[in-house]
Amino acid sequence: MRKKYLLAPGPVQAPPEVLAELAKPLIHHRTEQFENIFFQTQSLLKELFMTKLPVITFAASGTGAMEAAVVNFHSEADEVLVIRGGKFGERWGNISEAYKLKVHYIDIKWGSGIKPEEIEKYLNINKNIKSVMIQYVETSTAAMYDIENIAKVVTKTNTLLIVDAISALGVVPLPADDWKIDVIVGGSQKSLMLPPGLSFLWCSQKALSVSEKSNLPKFYFNIKKELKALEKKTTAWTPAISLIGALNTSLTMMKSYGWENLFKKNKKLMTAIHNGLKALNIELFSSSPAVSVTAGAVPQNVDGVKLVKDMKDIHAVTIAGGQDELKGKIFRVGTLGYVDSSDIIVFFAALEACLKSQNYKFNLGAGLSAAEKVLYSEENNA
Amino acid sequence: MRKKYLLAPGPVQAPPEVLAELAKPLIHHRTEQFENIFFQTQSLLKELFMTKLPVITFAASGTGAMEAAVVNFHSEADEVLVIRGGKFGERWGNISEAYKLKVHYIDIKWGSGIKPEEIEKYLNINKNIKSVMIQYVETSTAAMYDIENIAKVVTKTNTLLIVDAISALGVVPLPADDWKIDVIVGGSQKSLMLPPGLSFLWCSQKALSVSEKSNLPKFYFNIKKELKALEKKTTAWTPAISLIGALNTSLTMMKSYGWENLFKKNKKLMTAIHNGLKALNIELFSSSPAVSVTAGAVPQNVDGVKLVKDMKDIHAVTIAGGQDELKGKIFRVGTLGYVDSSDIIVFFAALEACLKSQNYKFNLGAGLSAAEKVLYSEENNA
Repeated sequence: MRKKYLLAPGPVQAPPEVLAELAKPLIHHRTEQFENIFFQTQSLLKELFMTKLPVITFAASGTGAMEAAVVNFHSEADEVLVIRGGKFGERWGNISEAYKLKVHYIDIKWGSGIKPEEIEKYLNINKNIKSVMIQYVETSTAAMYDIENIAKVVTKTNTLLIVDAISALGVVPLPADDWKIDVIVGGSQKSLMLPPGLSFLWCSQKALSVSEKSNLPKFYFNIKKELKALEKKTTAWTPAISLIGALNTSLTMMKSYGWENLFKKNKKLMTAIHNGLKALNIELFSSSPAVSVTAGAVPQNVDGVKLVKDMKDIHAVTIAGGQDELKGKIFRVGTLGYVDSSDIIVFFAALEACLKSQNYKFNLGAGLSAAEKVLYSEENNA
Repeated sequence: MRKKYLLAPGPVQAPPEVLAELAKPLIHHRTEQFENIFFQTQSLLKELFMTKLPVITFAASGTGAMEAAVVNFHSEADEVLVIRGGKFGERWGNISEAYKLKVHYIDIKWGSGIKPEEIEKYLNINKNIKSVMIQYVETSTAAMYDIENIAKVVTKTNTLLIVDAISALGVVPLPADDWKIDVIVGGSQKSLMLPPGLSFLWCSQKALSVSEKSNLPKFYFNIKKELKALEKKTTAWTPAISLIGALNTSLTMMKSYGWENLFKKNKKLMTAIHNGLKALNIELFSSSPAVSVTAGAVPQNVDGVKLVKDMKDIHAVTIAGGQDELKGKIFRVGTLGYVDSSDIIVFFAALEACLKSQNYKFNLGAGLSAAEKVLYSEENNA
């Protein structure tokens, strides 16, 4: 009977409408019926990516689409630049190294942002770099990078800008065409409010012509095959049929809410979390905080692992702890996808209870009412 | 209100119990709750594969696991032997060529089987061949190969036997350990009665030691990372959470029906289809027919494309036509997964109606009653 709140930075809660779609009887994928559904998702995905160009859908989780971004747009021994400031930055490097690319790294302090000029300078000195790989949101540290301005400096060169937007897409604006990004990768289990199992890849015309010459081996993640299949309203390999039906539902829900309203809502939820934490004297871990996920620095004398565990075990609120070197030092709460003001209120009630049980000193209700001010005041109602 | 029958050779109908599982609220995958479910599926998958060794689960459709079988067990310029007798045999070749392996082919007539001695002879002459890649069931032609005896001849050599069992697993016995197969690939949308989106890879100790030396590039489909994650009851990358919950349900249902009963049932359904088609003077396309899927040769003066279309449009029975060169020449009906005697009866009623409307000469009811004899006679009731 306990009401459960999944407030991790992915997977997120799926709306009942999406869950109901998943429970529909299977249809065959080589039928007009499926092709029509897939075609509808294509047009909605284009709105999400703010593009006129096609968006590829893989039956794979996000890492698969990241691999696709590496193997389709590079050739043997290419030099690439990875911005490494967390676990997912590391992943760009690991995939590139697995394919024996020559990887340059700009290592940034976990949780920090990066100045576009730093990338510009690096590319000016290292003229052979074929691509810059970066996250929009580095989920592991809750940092967000300034992709709009990074795109401006990379666009001046021949280098491709490859963005893992798994935790950003549908949360903050990401106009693929206008910002002149080259490759964008997305996943289903974040703002799209779906279970994991689908991932997306979009690429610019410039990236597409680079891909024509790419000589890295690929098969399942071959975008050329997928783009050809897309013209026939289908996928190259058997699609994850149920998830695609659910994708159609979730994108339709998002569109009907309004893309701009969605961005506004996410920002409001983020502000509520920020203000609430501040009122509890909890610092943000990231100096360049993301809209999709907030990392709170665990205060001294508070056991961070126990905090996350108690939130779940006692209050049925699932948030995420820190990974690897951040274990016990931060907690992360997602404000992406099917999350609403009410969820943030529940989060603060549970958080305050857990902090109190660890004898952390604060005014009970302080976080809650700071959040309330943001979420339930008239001028903020979208 | 129309009752729909999905009788394709995959995707297949999912039981309501499985659909209901897909509609459950999402849980986070880095939790004890998910790890326990995943661990249960692991032990059930071992029963399905009849093995003591681990079974890897990928968030990808079957082609992804086929690629995993290529990239994990081979090295640059390895020679491999592909048995090519249909679209999926071709796929083994295409993946191997994408990774620049040196591919030998034994081309067999589409629909035919292959004598184990032929493979034995080929391996005796070509001593450098590192692996034989074959289907257990070639879904495109409805042919089944004699894997048990092929394994006997391959086992005598150092060559690995790599079997795509996507359309065979859970339909016919496939004792991975006893038959000494080296690599087996499976998928979710066949006998496992799930939507597409999961695939499986099992490998022998012998194959595992070959994989240690494999130098082909890989990341998403790296089995070493997956086996390490399996020890911690999880996957290397974000798993398709909902599908894994549903997998647990479907495997539990299969186990409770009984693996042997399942094999018996599938054989009975196949026999009913064979006898029913014979009574309608429709020949089997394959001379080495599969248990999972039957291909009927479209009789002269019957329009095969219209037949498949009418079955669906008029009678809501989805079967599959032929692909590529077999388009219009065969129709394929699946007898795998959540298919029962009642479905076969419905199939024949619809088939006879469609044949009649095309003025094909036969005794109305002949197919139906031949099937009935197999399915509803006492001695056949499992």
